[in-house]
Amino acid sequence: MSNSNVAKLGPLSGITVVDLTRVLAGPYCTLLMADLGARVIKVEQPNIGDDSRQIGPFIDGESAYFMSINRNKESIALDLKAEADKKIFESLLETADVLVENFRPGTMEKLGYSWEVLHQRYPKLVFTSVSGFGQTGPYSKRPAYDMVVQAMGGIMSLTGQPGGPPTRVGVSIGDLGAGLYAMIGTQAALLQRERTGMGEQVDVAMLDCQVALLENSIARYEVDKRIPEPIGSRHPSITPFDVFKAKDGWMVVAAGNDMLFQRLCNILNLPNLKTDERFSTNPLRCEHHDQLKVELEKRLQEEACKHWIDLLMENNIPTGEYNNLAQVLESPQIHEREMLLDVFSANGSKLTVAGNPIHIGSFVSKVDRNPPALDQDRHEIMKELNLD
Amino acid sequence: MSNSNVAKLGPLSGITVVDLTRVLAGPYCTLLMADLGARVIKVEQPNIGDDSRQIGPFIDGESAYFMSINRNKESIALDLKAEADKKIFESLLETADVLVENFRPGTMEKLGYSWEVLHQRYPKLVFTSVSGFGQTGPYSKRPAYDMVVQAMGGIMSLTGQPGGPPTRVGVSIGDLGAGLYAMIGTQAALLQRERTGMGEQVDVAMLDCQVALLENSIARYEVDKRIPEPIGSRHPSITPFDVFKAKDGWMVVAAGNDMLFQRLCNILNLPNLKTDERFSTNPLRCEHHDQLKVELEKRLQEEACKHWIDLLMENNIPTGEYNNLAQVLESPQIHEREMLLDVFSANGSKLTVAGNPIHIGSFVSKVDRNPPALDQDRHEIMKELNLD
Repeated sequence: MSNSNVAKLGPLSGITVVDLTRVLAGPYCTLLMADLGARVIKVEQPNIGDDSRQIGPFIDGESAYFMSINRNKESIALDLKAEADKKIFESLLETADVLVENFRPGTMEKLGYSWEVLHQRYPKLVFTSVSGFGQTGPYSKRPAYDMVVQAMGGIMSLTGQPGGPPTRVGVSIGDLGAGLYAMIGTQAALLQRERTGMGEQVDVAMLDCQVALLENSIARYEVDKRIPEPIGSRHPSITPFDVFKAKDGWMVVAAGNDMLFQRLCNILNLPNLKTDERFSTNPLRCEHHDQLKVELEKRLQEEACKHWIDLLMENNIPTGEYNNLAQVLESPQIHEREMLLDVFSANGSKLTVAGNPIHIGSFVSKVDRNPPALDQDRHEIMKELNLD
Repeated sequence: MSNSNVAKLGPLSGITVVDLTRVLAGPYCTLLMADLGARVIKVEQPNIGDDSRQIGPFIDGESAYFMSINRNKESIALDLKAEADKKIFESLLETADVLVENFRPGTMEKLGYSWEVLHQRYPKLVFTSVSGFGQTGPYSKRPAYDMVVQAMGGIMSLTGQPGGPPTRVGVSIGDLGAGLYAMIGTQAALLQRERTGMGEQVDVAMLDCQVALLENSIARYEVDKRIPEPIGSRHPSITPFDVFKAKDGWMVVAAGNDMLFQRLCNILNLPNLKTDERFSTNPLRCEHHDQLKVELEKRLQEEACKHWIDLLMENNIPTGEYNNLAQVLESPQIHEREMLLDVFSANGSKLTVAGNPIHIGSFVSKVDRNPPALDQDRHEIMKELNLD
C-alpha cells in the first residue's frame, strides 16, 4: 500500500498501521504515528465504532473527545467475527507494517489472531498490544482504566496537598503514558526489523508505565525508607522551588541554589531573609520551607505576577506564569511552535486541539485529514485492496 | 563502533548514541535508548560530570538520583572547550548514529557544533535537542525547569483539590514527558534515515510536550468555554469513577455506566441509591457526585479495602488498590513484569530502580552495566577510537 494515492509526508511516511484501538491509550499511540506521517487505518466495530465516539463533549453531534485524538487517520468498519470482514482485515494485514490493539488480553486469541498465528502469516508485521496489566502476570486479565492504574501505580500517592485526600493527576497520564511507551516500543521493533527482516510482538502495560514514571521517588524511598507523600506544589529537595501567591495570582519561583537565593532576597529587598540562619543553606531552607514561603509571599503579595516575573527574568532567576487553560492557548510560544491545530467536524465546525511536539528538520505535524466519520474510507480502501 | 566489544542485545543494538545531556529530560531519553540496546556514551564535564551526580539522596557517596537513570551507559569526561578533547568528541561523532543534548538553545552553536556544522560533517547523524521552550520562538532562550513548564503548560491548573492551592504532579512530568517525545522523535528520524540515508535535527521542547499531554481538557474548554479547574480524584465526566475511603484506607471504584452502577448498588446492598432520582443517569450522577460519594463512603467505611476490592472484582466492577510507594514495590504483577531492577554502587550497595516497560518479543530491559563513575570508560573508548 506504500504506492497508494494517500501517501503522506513525514518521517514515518511509507509505514502502514492497522489500528484496532479504542478510547485513549491505543488511539494516542496511533495518533503519534499518524502525525509523523504513517498511514493509520482505524478498523472500527460496525455501527458503533471507537467507544470514544460516544464520549462528550459534542460538537455538531460529533465527539470532541474523539476528534481530539483521531486526526490524520482513515476509518473502515469491520466485524472481526464475520468471515467476509475477516478476509478484508487479513488483506489489510498483508499490506501493513504494524498492527496495534488495546483489547483485554485474550481477545485477539479468541478472534483467531494470536501472535503465533499473525507472525506465521505476516512475518514482517510488528504487533503492538497495549493493556492495563500486560500480556503476562497474575493481574493480566483484570480490567483497567486510567483511574485504576494511577491509583495502583503510585503516582496518585505522590500527588496532592500534604495530609489531603487522594488527588488524581489532572490528565489521563495512565493512558497517555502507555501510548507513548507503546509508540517507542513499536518504533524500536521497526528499527530491529531493518536488521532482522522480522516483525516482533510489543507488549506494553499501563501499570508498568506508571512505575516507569515514578522517577526519583523510588530511589528516595530506597535510601531513607520513608514512604513519600504528597507535598503540594513544591520540589521535594530544593527550596525555594515552588508556586507562590502574588497580588493577582500564582507564579513560579525556582531559585535552585544559594547564589540564586541571595539574588532573590536582594531584588525582593528582603535583607533579613538573606542573613536568617534558618535559610542559610538549601537543606535548612528545605527544613523551614513553610516559614520561608510565608515570608516570601508576604512580599510577593504587594505586586502583581507580571511585575515580579519581569523582575526575576531580568535577574536570571528562573520563574514562570501559572497558566490556566485559556492562558496556555494564548501563549505566543505555543503558537509559534505550531502546538495548536484546528480540526473540523463533518458540518465544518472548528475544534482546536493539541498538536505534536516533535519537530524533525522542517517537518511539523499538520492536519492532513480531519477525524474520520465511521467507515468513511471504506470505498477507497476496498479499491486499493482490489476487493471492490 | 558497531563491531566493538561492547555490542549489546536488544532492538536498538548497533545504534551508537553520543549523549551530552544532564539531569533529567535528556538522560531519561537516553536511558530509554540504552535500555533498548543502543550503546550510549555519556560525554560529561571533567571533574563535575552530569549535574545530577550532586543531587541527593546519596548511597555510599553516590547520587541515587543519578543512579536511577544512568544504568547501561558508558562515561567519558571531555572538555568541549579544549582542542584536544574536541578532537576526541569529533572522533566519537564519526562513529555515532545519534547525538543528544539538552543545553539552553545557543550553547551548541557557541561550542562550534551547530546543526549546520554537524550535518555537513556527519550527514548521517541524527541530532536531538531537548530544551525548555524549543529552538525557535520568543521564549526560546528562557531557562526552564520541570516546575516552570508544569505551571506554564497548564497541567498544574488541572491537578489538585477543588478550590485548593496549586498542586504539582508528584513526578517531574515536565522532564519525563519531554524525554519520551524526544525518544520518539529520534527513532522516527532513524527510521526516516533508512529511506533517505540522511540524519535530521530533532527539536523537542518541554513546554510543547506539556501541551501535547493536556488530552481532552482543550476540547472540553473549546466546546463549553469554561476554564477547567482541579477536581480532586474524580473523573470529569463519569460518576462514580473516583477514589473512595473504606474502613482502612482508600480504593478505586470505577462504575462507568448505568449497568455497572446498578450492579454496584446491588452488591453494596444499597437499594435506595439504585432508585434515587438524583443518581438515575450518568449526567445526573455527575451533577450530584458529592452527594453520591457521601452515600457510597458511608457504606464502604464498614469494611476494609480488601473486602470490597475482592467483592467488586468477583462482580466485574473495575476497582483497584490505592497504593503507596512501598505497596507498589511489593506488587506481584510489577515483579512478574520485571519492572524493578537492581543497580549497584561502586562499593556494591544495591539500589532498586524502575525498569523499562517495553517488552519486545522475549526482550526485557536488564542491567548490563551499573551507572558509570565519571570518566569510567575513557580507556576502552580511546582504544576503540585508536587514540590511545
